[in-house]
Amino acid sequence: MYVIIGYDVSTMSAEGRKRLRKVSKACQNYGQRVQNSLFECCIDYGTFLKLKNELEKIINKETDSLRYYYLGNNWEKKVEHVGAKPSFNPQDILII
Amino acid sequence: MYVIIGYDVSTMSAEGRKRLRKVSKACQNYGQRVQNSLFECCIDYGTFLKLKNELEKIINKETDSLRYYYLGNNWEKKVEHVGAKPSFNPQDILII
Repeated sequence: MYVIIGYDVSTMSAEGRKRLRKVSKACQNYGQRVQNSLFECCIDYGTFLKLKNELEKIINKETDSLRYYYLGNNWEKKVEHVGAKPSFNPQDILII
Repeated sequence: MYVIIGYDVSTMSAEGRKRLRKVSKACQNYGQRVQNSLFECCIDYGTFLKLKNELEKIINKETDSLRYYYLGNNWEKKVEHVGAKPSFNPQDILII
């Protein structure tokens, strides 16, 4: 499945800035940063639930928010990028 | 159709900060801000092309980026919000 994860974490306090780093790090373990606080994850459902659980333990639900968009499997036609830093297609062949 | 618009605009220069305000304002005319630089638009295709054209004239394609996610019509099951500032469903009945 292909999931977009957007997050808004309040950085008014040092504690908030710490939460932001943790959220960003957790997302980096499972997906690709495509914009400042926007990640795309090509992930199976079980692993996604693990990440979701981790993220929702990190954030302060009074001040921060997480937004998930489930694009399903044939997601390529549902995503369009214009401008700088285009992302890579995680399902493309990686030649090393 | 339901479209998610994410944007990253370089704010290193005054000109960049001006572009950011313009992009944000253009999106506000057509959709709902759900996170810092993330909008959701419940919009017909013709109007979307108008907005898209407007946004792509504003940004500097060397430093800024736009990301569009097309969720189609039955989008409600594809969007999940956790935490602060939940958005409203643009297709709900508005009682004045």
